[in-house]
Amino acid sequence: MGEFDLIERYFKRSTPPKSGVDLGIGDDCALLAPAPGMQLAISSDMLVEGRHFLSTVNPEALGHKALAVNLSDLAACGAKPVAFTLALAMPRIDEAWLAGFSRGLFALADAQGCALIGGDTTAGPLNICITVFGHTPQGQALLRSGARVGDDIYVSGWPGQARLALEAFRGTISLPEAAFAQMRTRMERPEPRVALGLALRTIASSAVDVSDGLLGDLGHILQRSGVAADIELDAINTIAFRAHSMPGNGPFDLKFMQEMVLAGGDDYELVFTAAPSTRTAIQALSTQLCLPLTRIGCTRAGSGITLIDEQGQPQAPAYASFDHFKG
Amino acid sequence: MGEFDLIERYFKRSTPPKSGVDLGIGDDCALLAPAPGMQLAISSDMLVEGRHFLSTVNPEALGHKALAVNLSDLAACGAKPVAFTLALAMPRIDEAWLAGFSRGLFALADAQGCALIGGDTTAGPLNICITVFGHTPQGQALLRSGARVGDDIYVSGWPGQARLALEAFRGTISLPEAAFAQMRTRMERPEPRVALGLALRTIASSAVDVSDGLLGDLGHILQRSGVAADIELDAINTIAFRAHSMPGNGPFDLKFMQEMVLAGGDDYELVFTAAPSTRTAIQALSTQLCLPLTRIGCTRAGSGITLIDEQGQPQAPAYASFDHFKG
Repeated sequence: MGEFDLIERYFKRSTPPKSGVDLGIGDDCALLAPAPGMQLAISSDMLVEGRHFLSTVNPEALGHKALAVNLSDLAACGAKPVAFTLALAMPRIDEAWLAGFSRGLFALADAQGCALIGGDTTAGPLNICITVFGHTPQGQALLRSGARVGDDIYVSGWPGQARLALEAFRGTISLPEAAFAQMRTRMERPEPRVALGLALRTIASSAVDVSDGLLGDLGHILQRSGVAADIELDAINTIAFRAHSMPGNGPFDLKFMQEMVLAGGDDYELVFTAAPSTRTAIQALSTQLCLPLTRIGCTRAGSGITLIDEQGQPQAPAYASFDHFKG
Repeated sequence: MGEFDLIERYFKRSTPPKSGVDLGIGDDCALLAPAPGMQLAISSDMLVEGRHFLSTVNPEALGHKALAVNLSDLAACGAKPVAFTLALAMPRIDEAWLAGFSRGLFALADAQGCALIGGDTTAGPLNICITVFGHTPQGQALLRSGARVGDDIYVSGWPGQARLALEAFRGTISLPEAAFAQMRTRMERPEPRVALGLALRTIASSAVDVSDGLLGDLGHILQRSGVAADIELDAINTIAFRAHSMPGNGPFDLKFMQEMVLAGGDDYELVFTAAPSTRTAIQALSTQLCLPLTRIGCTRAGSGITLIDEQGQPQAPAYASFDHFKG
C-alpha cells in the first residue's frame, strides 16, 4: 500500500459538508472561511514516541490523545473546534496500527465536530503533528494576558492523576488495579475541556491548559498578565486527596501527592483566573459540566508564585515545570 | 537552554503587526482574521531527515526549504502567504544549527511576507512540520479539479534539475562543478512559485505543484478533473536540453534526461492547465517573471497520460511518481 492508498483508506471520509470548511482533503490546500466577525484560533502540537507516549501505547488511545492535546489549546482560548490537519511520519505502513489510530482520532474528532481537512504522510521515526483550527468571536478569545490583581485562580478536574499513572508505568510507585486503570485513562485519553473553555469565555479573565505542570503553566499567565499568585496548599490537598481516594489505595503521602498535583503535567486540565464576583457562576458551571472547578488561590500585585501552607504561612516553591529538553 | 529560551532566542521576533494576524506566538493559540470575502488556504508538510533531506544539508538551506515546500502548496492554489506555524523535533539543542535554520527560514518568510505565529518544539528524531496559511478571494483558488478538455498543459521553470543534483549526490551521475552548484541550489533552495500562482488565479483552469514528479502530480489534476493528457516529448526535450545545457556538461543522454524531467520530483515548479485563448497572457507572464512557462501538451477526453513521441506517435508512459513509502 502506498501513500495515497493509505490516505484514501484510513483518513479520507465522506462526511457531510461542515460550516466554515469550504474544501477538505485532496487538493494542494484546504480552504476555510470563518464567518464575518469570527477569528480563527490555531494551535500546533507534535507528539514523539518515547517522549510524549510510550511505544506500548494502544494506537486508538494515541489517536485520541494526539488530537486531544491540540483541542486542549483551543479550549484554553475558548475556541470552538472546526477542523484539523494531520502530518504523520511512520517507520512503515502497519495497517492494524493505522486502523486503531484513525479510529481513536475520528471518534474524538466527530464528538467535537472537528473535520480532518488535510496533512501529510511520510516514512520516518513515529511522529504525529496536528494543527487545529477553532472559531471564536472577534476579541472574545481567552488569553494568558487577561488576569487582573485580585482574581481567583481555579483548576479544573483531576490534575496529578496523569503523572501518577506515568510514575506507576515507571515503577516508582505502585497503584491498585482500579486506581491505575483510571489514572492510565487520564494519561492516555485526556478529555480536552472544550465545553468548559467555551463557557469560560464570558466568565474567566485568562486561561491556559496544563500540559507541563500546574505551577509552570500558571506561570505563563502570571508572566503575561504581570501579576503574582498565592496558591493555597489547603486547596491543593483537597485535589490531592480527591486524586488519591480510590478503592484499595495505600498510605497517603501528602508531600508526594502535592508534587503530583502542582508539577505533574500531561493533565490537559484548564487553569484559569476569574473575578471573585463570578464565584456563583463558576460553581453552577462545575455542577452543569459534572467537573470539579477548584479555587486554588488568587492573584496579587508582584511576580512569581507563593505557596501558602496550611497555617497560612508562605513557602518557597520547589517544583519545576516540565521541559521537553530536560524532563 | 530550555524549550522556552530556545523559542525566545531563535523563533520569536519583534516584527511589525501584520494584516490578518491578530495574535502571534506566546499564547495557547494564534488568532487569524481573514478579511470578509477571503478564504484561508491551509497546507501542511512534514520533512524527515534521510527522506526529504540529507543529514549533511546546510541548516540555513533546510530552513529555507522547509518553508518553501509549504509555500509551494499555497502557490499551487494561487493563495497569498500570510502566516505559518512550525513544529520542530530535534535530538538535542544545537545552537549553531538553530541559528542557521532560523536564518534561512526567516529570510524566505520575510521575502514572502509570511509571519511565524506559533508551533511546538520537542526532543526527538529531527522532524520539521510546517503549516502555512494564505489568503485567496472567495471562490478564486486554483484547484486540481478545474481542467477542461482542450486546455493547454504547462510546467514552470526547470523540472528535473533537483533530481539531477540528488543523483549526483548518490554518485549515479557526475556533473561538472558549475552545473552541480546550480542543480544543488534547485534541490536545496527551491523557489516557491508564489508570484506565478497569484498571477495564474485569473488565467489558469487548474494547478498543482511538482513534489513527487511531473507526470505523477499532473495525474492528480487529470484524476480530479476527469480528463486525459497528451504530453509531447518534443517539449520535454526542450526542457531536458535547457536543464542540461551548462558549461562543461558531458554527453547528452536524452532518454535519461527525459526521465529526470518527467519523474524527477522535488522540483516545486507548478504544472497548470489553461485554455488556448490565454497563450498570449501566459507568454507575457513568463517574460514578466523571467521564468520559463513551457507548454508540454494538452488535455483531452478520457483518462491517463499518453506520451507523444517526436514523430507524433503515442508511447506507453514508463515513469512512476515518487511515493514516500516506496521511493
